[in-house]
Amino acid sequence: MTQEINPPVRKQATSYDVARLAGVSQSAVSRVFKSGASASAKMRKRVLAAATEIGYRPNAIARGLITQRSNMVGVVISRMTNLYYPELLVQLTQAFSERGIRVLLFTLEHESEINVVLEQTLQYQVDGIVTAAILTPAQIDMLSAAGIPVVLYNRQAKHGQAAAVRCDQETGEAWLVAQLIASDHKRFAIISGPQDSTVSMERTGGALRHLSDLGIGDVTVVAGDYSYESGHQGLLEVHRRLGALPDAIIAANDAMAIGCIDAARHRLGVDVPESLSVVGFDGIGASRYAAYRLTTVQQPVARMTQATVEMLLQRIAQPDFGHEQRVFQGTPVRGHSARLS
Amino acid sequence: MTQEINPPVRKQATSYDVARLAGVSQSAVSRVFKSGASASAKMRKRVLAAATEIGYRPNAIARGLITQRSNMVGVVISRMTNLYYPELLVQLTQAFSERGIRVLLFTLEHESEINVVLEQTLQYQVDGIVTAAILTPAQIDMLSAAGIPVVLYNRQAKHGQAAAVRCDQETGEAWLVAQLIASDHKRFAIISGPQDSTVSMERTGGALRHLSDLGIGDVTVVAGDYSYESGHQGLLEVHRRLGALPDAIIAANDAMAIGCIDAARHRLGVDVPESLSVVGFDGIGASRYAAYRLTTVQQPVARMTQATVEMLLQRIAQPDFGHEQRVFQGTPVRGHSARLS
Repeated sequence: MTQEINPPVRKQATSYDVARLAGVSQSAVSRVFKSGASASAKMRKRVLAAATEIGYRPNAIARGLITQRSNMVGVVISRMTNLYYPELLVQLTQAFSERGIRVLLFTLEHESEINVVLEQTLQYQVDGIVTAAILTPAQIDMLSAAGIPVVLYNRQAKHGQAAAVRCDQETGEAWLVAQLIASDHKRFAIISGPQDSTVSMERTGGALRHLSDLGIGDVTVVAGDYSYESGHQGLLEVHRRLGALPDAIIAANDAMAIGCIDAARHRLGVDVPESLSVVGFDGIGASRYAAYRLTTVQQPVARMTQATVEMLLQRIAQPDFGHEQRVFQGTPVRGHSARLS
Repeated sequence: MTQEINPPVRKQATSYDVARLAGVSQSAVSRVFKSGASASAKMRKRVLAAATEIGYRPNAIARGLITQRSNMVGVVISRMTNLYYPELLVQLTQAFSERGIRVLLFTLEHESEINVVLEQTLQYQVDGIVTAAILTPAQIDMLSAAGIPVVLYNRQAKHGQAAAVRCDQETGEAWLVAQLIASDHKRFAIISGPQDSTVSMERTGGALRHLSDLGIGDVTVVAGDYSYESGHQGLLEVHRRLGALPDAIIAANDAMAIGCIDAARHRLGVDVPESLSVVGFDGIGASRYAAYRLTTVQQPVARMTQATVEMLLQRIAQPDFGHEQRVFQGTPVRGHSARLS
């Protein structure tokens, strides 16, 4: 859709207009509006009064063209079927905002659209990018060539070729598997996340590996898409395939674990956890609802967000800061959705 | 926090560099990169090859300074204790994105911070603003003076002095109240949302008015904050105050209704809906979980989002388009959390 537009001419007041009205120099006006620069309280008051009177406001974008910084960062997230992301988004936006940096938001239907979005973030001259979608080595090279620092959120950089913050999905799954096996669970099924989600691959792959290490090789895996509904359907599919329920279901996230529990209780009339254990991953709000009280692994969102913001700002300030991987351990939550001894 | 930064000098390729390499005119390069302008497939291929070779990309921000448009809109939302907003945010971002417009995201801890945020959105020269926080007449005047169109989302403009899209909260509550009264509920309590939420005021006020119209004047109101936990605590507080439970709880949103149900079942051992009816508002994902299946009113998010995007684009294209209020009716959901006859 294209629209021909004749924009209204906005006559904008300049810092010189403010200086004239306030009876001060233009550089004094500049100092008042520049964060971190000094100006006396009296000067500040005088300049702000004049600015308000004539409707002056500093143009952040024009300033960005001069300083080569836009004070904007791009945040790229996948469509939020994983309920864990909205929380992350609010925390990231607030952490950047406290440092005077705005978030330009990009959403993907599928992780495969990342190329188009990267091109757009560059057009907007963002100072850096946080992405919760996977980047190929070629994409990382493109950003590097453009001088745009990037931090991968919950994604691994191949060969460590980018800064990354993530939760240790595999160790989290190892804890869940160890608990279930120690409590005499023998037959397992897994409900995975979307095919193109690397987090789901790490979780599902991790669970399978640990089960195999502990002598359990025959595990039914059903594909979900991180949604409650797919967890619900996933359990029914496991039931159909096996002709019975296993001892435990390992769901690749909490929303699907909740769907499983509801399907067991309300469709199959099976008690959770007495007759079926269900475990999730993430620690979303609903995992604490009294109806579920999930056995899960809580991602340390606040610490991961803080680390992401710090790492991106370091790399914006010092582009040669180098790559670093920060891996946070999730917090095991025993909950009440698995029969643990 | 201020950091002194020496940005790396990025030598950026210009459209003239691309034109020289491709052996075409600069205006041909311009046409290839301008959406909606015509260029032959052959020309497009030649220009894109040259652009890729020298790393050229059009600068959206510099272009914005020339066209007086930044192709960015500001979206202002309150901190997402109301689980309904993340869904809205994704839908808005995608609808704008399909039209080549990016979303600059602003989050508020409290609606009272709106002044600071408005000043910032103006500094970034956004083409327009969607706000889910209330604006005072003075703030609307400020935006109007700056020539920035605004659409209020789920907020009413005083005296109709702004474009607004909202769900008819009061009619939704009227439906809920009428159903409950027709099904012989006599004693009511309300759990409201945060004090500074106008949506909560409309819902709570609407419910009280309709109850009063139907002869029920004595209603206990307990303050919540839209969170699950506050719904849980709210029910216990109602129980303490009355020394018993009422026939029905009207919660100002679904998250609190779910908290109420869990408190009734898991703390007080009371059956929902047999011994207590609980109704919510919003139609969030969790309202459809089999453990709850809420009686609620579903906001038509997709239609409201579509209307918001259309209205904002109309006003960016034609600043004198004038104000308009679009009010959408929610969809009643009978659910299973209220004992309806």
